Amino acid sequence: MRLITVDSLKEIINKVGIESFMSQTIEALKADFSRWHEFNKCPRHATHYPHGVIELMPCSDNEFYSFKYVNGHPGNTEKAKMCVTALGLLADVESGYPIMLSEMTLLTAIRTAATAALGAVYLARKDSHHLALIGTGAQAEFQFIATQSVLPIDTVSFYDPDVKAMEKFAQHIKGKAKLLPCTSTKQAIELADMIITATAHKGKTSLFEQDNINLGTHIHAMGGDCPGKTELPIDLLKTSKVIVEFLPQSKIEGEIQNNPDQNIHGELWQLISGDIVGRENDEEITLFDSVGFALEDFSILKLVNQLSHGLNIGQQADLIPKPRDPKDLYGVLL
Amino acid sequence: MRLITVDSLKEIINKVGIESFMSQTIEALKADFSRWHEFNKCPRHATHYPHGVIELMPCSDNEFYSFKYVNGHPGNTEKAKMCVTALGLLADVESGYPIMLSEMTLLTAIRTAATAALGAVYLARKDSHHLALIGTGAQAEFQFIATQSVLPIDTVSFYDPDVKAMEKFAQHIKGKAKLLPCTSTKQAIELADMIITATAHKGKTSLFEQDNINLGTHIHAMGGDCPGKTELPIDLLKTSKVIVEFLPQSKIEGEIQNNPDQNIHGELWQLISGDIVGRENDEEITLFDSVGFALEDFSILKLVNQLSHGLNIGQQADLIPKPRDPKDLYGVLL
Repeated sequence: MRLITVDSLKEIINKVGIESFMSQTIEALKADFSRWHEFNKCPRHATHYPHGVIELMPCSDNEFYSFKYVNGHPGNTEKAKMCVTALGLLADVESGYPIMLSEMTLLTAIRTAATAALGAVYLARKDSHHLALIGTGAQAEFQFIATQSVLPIDTVSFYDPDVKAMEKFAQHIKGKAKLLPCTSTKQAIELADMIITATAHKGKTSLFEQDNINLGTHIHAMGGDCPGKTELPIDLLKTSKVIVEFLPQSKIEGEIQNNPDQNIHGELWQLISGDIVGRENDEEITLFDSVGFALEDFSILKLVNQLSHGLNIGQQADLIPKPRDPKDLYGVLL
Repeated sequence: MRLITVDSLKEIINKVGIESFMSQTIEALKADFSRWHEFNKCPRHATHYPHGVIELMPCSDNEFYSFKYVNGHPGNTEKAKMCVTALGLLADVESGYPIMLSEMTLLTAIRTAATAALGAVYLARKDSHHLALIGTGAQAEFQFIATQSVLPIDTVSFYDPDVKAMEKFAQHIKGKAKLLPCTSTKQAIELADMIITATAHKGKTSLFEQDNINLGTHIHAMGGDCPGKTELPIDLLKTSKVIVEFLPQSKIEGEIQNNPDQNIHGELWQLISGDIVGRENDEEITLFDSVGFALEDFSILKLVNQLSHGLNIGQQADLIPKPRDPKDLYGVLL
């Protein structure tokens, strides 16, 4: 069984290059979403506490089984801790044996951004050059890199109530696009072709009003991802072309939890398979109500497994007993 | 984050002694089952494949969250692999951060045996001295040690169609009780005060008939633990006093899946809290339809966490990024 530590993953990503790693993740996601019906799928299992949530996200086909442990604790940053941490496992369906255990805090940020980019391919205007980012926390740089890999983004306006978080983002992204730090959400989205909302606050808020949104905008809403945690006004949902990942889960966790009668255009896999058409003109407002789905973890874990083998990175972990006789588990202790 | 490898766990168990480790597990289970209402509980999440099952088993109180990854692949032993492998995680509810990742193949065998023993305290006759074991695979020695720690067992009769598995069991247990290897299930249970059924076959079978069972016997049925995987005749269910761990899960997975109208005496926690009485006389047949519940994993993971700290065993694993600024996840890659 292979262990991918934070250091192993850094080694893999730095060898491949973050841009290439992101593109490979987008390709892996596209390949897996296009064979949607081959997967065992279910809404994630969430346990809610007053200050956060802990989730298990399983997904499998007939060859691999994956799951992720992930938490979401918006108050953590005040205690110098990350809001989100995660671990992921890839296992062999044939034997049930674990194959690889990996750090997944970084991988979650990367696959989340890759999913946003994949949606943008079908939903944003092809000439989108101005990205607005609302929330410049742990996700922000990954979202920018992913979006720029699929759209001709040359300008990024951004807002976060935490000025230090904005400075951090600017520091990492400078040179990659024209930076427009803003003093409000409204200012940040004013000229945007595409908006990404990525806030951590656990509560129902409206980051902007419907009439702040330009015609033809694509909105990637990823911060509404938990019951009671949403970012957008209901009016906007009603007038947008809404795409989700997996409707049974999105109904519970997404922006659409606020509008039970919401008209859904379809699921991401349908865009990829050509089952439905994404953007149809330059005027419509499209909205990817993305909550994060277990198949995204599956895809990136499989990719990391392949890369770690190819590059021979990662260590063997002594986490599964190896009795000489498989029925002699007791003998392992002797 | 602490990593408990197979070697770390061996070191802990060998330092403490397997008998003491088993007794401590039984005590930990008793303490946790007695505060049943403090836990977040749900049936485990199972994904079924033609040749096996993969499960996730979460459980938490307000302090700790645990889950186990576990598979059940009865055909594995033919390929020199174990039927069951497992990994467990303990996390901090306050922050959502993982605290300890542990091997859990051995721990599953131990907590399963400890649960059987805990049930036997309330359900077996106090003078039970003859144990019958049906199935002498990976679980058998642990079941014997656990039962002997709570009852005056001086004789063990046992049967398994695999003669090598019987020899393995006899080799490990000799000196601890009088050994009666048998050539059939019927012979093995003939004089038994308590019977433990622990077979791996995925299918519906009847290991014995109702009229093979002596009055006053306690049956611990642990091999029926999956939809379509049961070991006992329905007649026996109907005439026994049946205890389960967590009814919503047992209805899906236990022996009682075969009898939807089954009369249930109660759940294990009710015996421990004194809410219901276990055995009431020397004639009744009691049946613990045990499928394995996530709280059992919680208890033993907490115990291992305490012991590993006290004994300073286990290594630190680099599985969670440690950014200087908790919002600067991207900076971890630089």
